[in-house]
Amino acid sequence: MSLVIDLNADLGESFGTWVLGDDDAMLGVVTSANVACGFHAGDPTTLRRTVARAAERGVVVGAQVGYRDLAGFGRRRMDVAPEDLTADVLYQLGALEAMCRVAGTRVAYVKPHGALYTTAAVDESQARAVVDAVAAYDATLPLLGLPGSVLLRVAGERGLTPVGEAFADRGYDADGRLVARSAPGALLHDPAEVAARVVRMAREGVVKAVDGTEVAVDARSVCVHGDTPGAVGLAAAVRTALADAGVALEAFARP
Amino acid sequence: MSLVIDLNADLGESFGTWVLGDDDAMLGVVTSANVACGFHAGDPTTLRRTVARAAERGVVVGAQVGYRDLAGFGRRRMDVAPEDLTADVLYQLGALEAMCRVAGTRVAYVKPHGALYTTAAVDESQARAVVDAVAAYDATLPLLGLPGSVLLRVAGERGLTPVGEAFADRGYDADGRLVARSAPGALLHDPAEVAARVVRMAREGVVKAVDGTEVAVDARSVCVHGDTPGAVGLAAAVRTALADAGVALEAFARP
Amino acid sequence: MSLVIDLNADLGESFGTWVLGDDDAMLGVVTSANVACGFHAGDPTTLRRTVARAAERGVVVGAQVGYRDLAGFGRRRMDVAPEDLTADVLYQLGALEAMCRVAGTRVAYVKPHGALYTTAAVDESQARAVVDAVAAYDATLPLLGLPGSVLLRVAGERGLTPVGEAFADRGYDADGRLVARSAPGALLHDPAEVAARVVRMAREGVVKAVDGTEVAVDARSVCVHGDTPGAVGLAAAVRTALADAGVALEAFARP
Amino acid sequence: MSLVIDLNADLGESFGTWVLGDDDAMLGVVTSANVACGFHAGDPTTLRRTVARAAERGVVVGAQVGYRDLAGFGRRRMDVAPEDLTADVLYQLGALEAMCRVAGTRVAYVKPHGALYTTAAVDESQARAVVDAVAAYDATLPLLGLPGSVLLRVAGERGLTPVGEAFADRGYDADGRLVARSAPGALLHDPAEVAARVVRMAREGVVKAVDGTEVAVDARSVCVHGDTPGAVGLAAAVRTALADAGVALEAFARP
Repeated sequence: MSLVIDLNADLGESFGTWVLGDDDAMLGVVTSANVACGFHAGDPTTLRRTVARAAERGVVVGAQVGYRDLAGFGRRRMDVAPEDLTADVLYQLGALEAMCRVAGTRVAYVKPHGALYTTAAVDESQARAVVDAVAAYDATLPLLGLPGSVLLRVAGERGLTPVGEAFADRGYDADGRLVARSAPGALLHDPAEVAARVVRMAREGVVKAVDGTEVAVDARSVCVHGDTPGAVGLAAAVRTALADAGVALEAFARP
Repeated sequence: MSLVIDLNADLGESFGTWVLGDDDAMLGVVTSANVACGFHAGDPTTLRRTVARAAERGVVVGAQVGYRDLAGFGRRRMDVAPEDLTADVLYQLGALEAMCRVAGTRVAYVKPHGALYTTAAVDESQARAVVDAVAAYDATLPLLGLPGSVLLRVAGERGLTPVGEAFADRGYDADGRLVARSAPGALLHDPAEVAARVVRMAREGVVKAVDGTEVAVDARSVCVHGDTPGAVGLAAAVRTALADAGVALEAFARP
Repeated sequence: MSLVIDLNADLGESFGTWVLGDDDAMLGVVTSANVACGFHAGDPTTLRRTVARAAERGVVVGAQVGYRDLAGFGRRRMDVAPEDLTADVLYQLGALEAMCRVAGTRVAYVKPHGALYTTAAVDESQARAVVDAVAAYDATLPLLGLPGSVLLRVAGERGLTPVGEAFADRGYDADGRLVARSAPGALLHDPAEVAARVVRMAREGVVKAVDGTEVAVDARSVCVHGDTPGAVGLAAAVRTALADAGVALEAFARP
Repeated sequence: MSLVIDLNADLGESFGTWVLGDDDAMLGVVTSANVACGFHAGDPTTLRRTVARAAERGVVVGAQVGYRDLAGFGRRRMDVAPEDLTADVLYQLGALEAMCRVAGTRVAYVKPHGALYTTAAVDESQARAVVDAVAAYDATLPLLGLPGSVLLRVAGERGLTPVGEAFADRGYDADGRLVARSAPGALLHDPAEVAARVVRMAREGVVKAVDGTEVAVDARSVCVHGDTPGAVGLAAAVRTALADAGVALEAFARP
């Protein structure tokens, strides 16, 4: 049996003078880069550089679309009207596509960011607005999101390609949901533990929940953080462990 | 002899709740629409609607790229570093391209807006930065600008297609330059006079300057304003007069 | 018996080149101006001019604080963390205060705008965040809002001065709530009808709901729109009718 | 003879999720904090916290006003019309004043930031616009700037209090001007050398230029960087060296 998994991380999230994360180092680890599109983070020069480096290193570029909220880093839910949200997503997709075009690649998938990610996971109206944008722009683009989310269901109903992801260092509850960031067990910090966890996700499709039960995770991709302290080391540990376990690292989308 | 001219206007310059100009009416008059790209004006929903309507009516869409300055409407010169300006132009081009793609058309030319227009007309560094973006993005896209400007010269040197434009209702001095907006004769308001002027520009390639001398204007396109009081009436008068004079209205670029 | 009422309107909501409403005309009608503070609308030059003219004409200035959302005009609910919302309100209060100071007046009350108004009317957390800002800044400033709202309740509990307002041209339901903007009867357009309605609000404290029942309105101020077509005419009709009915127009706050 | 000097640094320049500099550590070193006001950097929560901590530690707060340009961090010259620039400065002054008020202090001086600093040092129009704002807001507020600059001259002519500053780690040329950042000798990195330099500035009023000549510097305050690598260590070395040399550290303005 041939096992493959994708590693994705949020990149391109600096803005002007403000630097976030170590994009260069992360591009040596991941197979897919969720590149910001300017609404929650990412000035045009940062986007162009990040995409160019991703292309050079064979990392697949996805559009990490978000709310228009630099001050809140796209982490605050906004009640954007569906028509406006669809146009916002299109605008961001196109902006990043230009950076891809001049780097000799293209936007290969879409992943909502922050509060848009969590809102579109449960809110039918916002999920549809995002899907409408992708369907109108390029119906072959996969949508990366939470397994079982409204977003992925709607994407599937519309004939798009939903792709589920797991989180390397987030705690899960017994129902397979992420533990809230404010609750105990929300974040794992030990690289060895996180790496072992991801290997099980990839090989067995299960993860141990905070209460000790094992829950199924159906994920073609695993998200590693790009901006936490120790992010690069943790991501590298995950990559090495997967290789050692005979799991091939391969992007889920093609440019 | 077959005479053709293009009429262009700045459109898509509303922002959120704030409306500017009567885009629908202007789209019935012009052959090319310089659509804002969100940096000086134009929220994504406005851009999408404006482009969709332009496409429906056969009006060619150009990207009206500007400085990132909503508060100043892109009318204030900014000393943007060349690398950043190139990325800013790419970002805007791509964003508008997405709106064109979902409307079944494409960005067919580029025209800088406001202070970027006047700066790139005289500043080699900013002119090169704009040209670099267009050359990297799509070297077949014409650049619309001031005849004799540094921008059009640099565009030509780089193998792009420079296209000169005249201004229907702006005064010219004896050297063929525009009269400063604060000086007497800067703006003409009488539709009949403006229309007659544009007919001479198109048929004879000359315009009467504020001092009464006649100066040559080498323009494949004529810019009419979209947001002044009486803009639609003035533009319509120009269009009618050109038709009556046997001048064909035809866009200079193809989608 | 001496009857007094205040007329308030949202002003200073232009932004850069984009004009909204006829502030000069409205300042001749209202007794209190809810001046935008730059987050949902209002560039600094507009704010300075609006405040200066209000001061010249004896119109009391209130701070119309909103979400940081120019593209959405502050009309989209945002899940802003309480600490951030408090700081956002303080920032806006101070910014407008500077314009008041140089015009020889001061911010005399606070009224949330748009989605912050409706959210703080029902959401305890956002209501407290707004009240915290006002209490820290100047606990003598009245808060203008919806009678019966969480905002006014929390303001009262904290020792601030809550002031209720009615809406001249909005429909009410039998429970005294505003009819949703999308429902029939949400907006009244006839100046004579609106004027008569406001006179009853002021003299009898009642308004006829959309189902014909009469409901109590406890309002020291009446809000008239500043940016709808016919806004000035409608506001002027209200003012004249109040005067004819012997109701004195008087601001509820003092600069 | 009693020697006193002030140490100032730019603080409060984080924005939302993006952190810049170590404000807490710097507040233990400087006597004056040039706190950003939101236009080039500084979200309201950051401003509130920075001002509160400055007040707790007895550091005097100044308003570091800048261009409205988050993407460029206020480092790009903008041709802002004087009336708009004056209103922009007033807006920022008031916003920071609110944070001071709730922290029990007040804005005690004004220092332009980045490109506004360098532009107002040579451009009469922008210098006057800044001075107009300060004069209208509070004519007792000192303006901190470059000795010999147009800004300080205009401030003096208008009856304001101009205060000159030197730069601890910037190279000077033989004319007493700062060496351009791109030229050799623009920045000094050795804490011991920088500290010795500042001691001479304070005690003798001279600094050694890049060509070895000694030039006079007339500075009541010395600016140390807050956001470079090693910034805190360098600033601390300066502070210690001044104390050892018998130079008293004392703010030039009072809250």
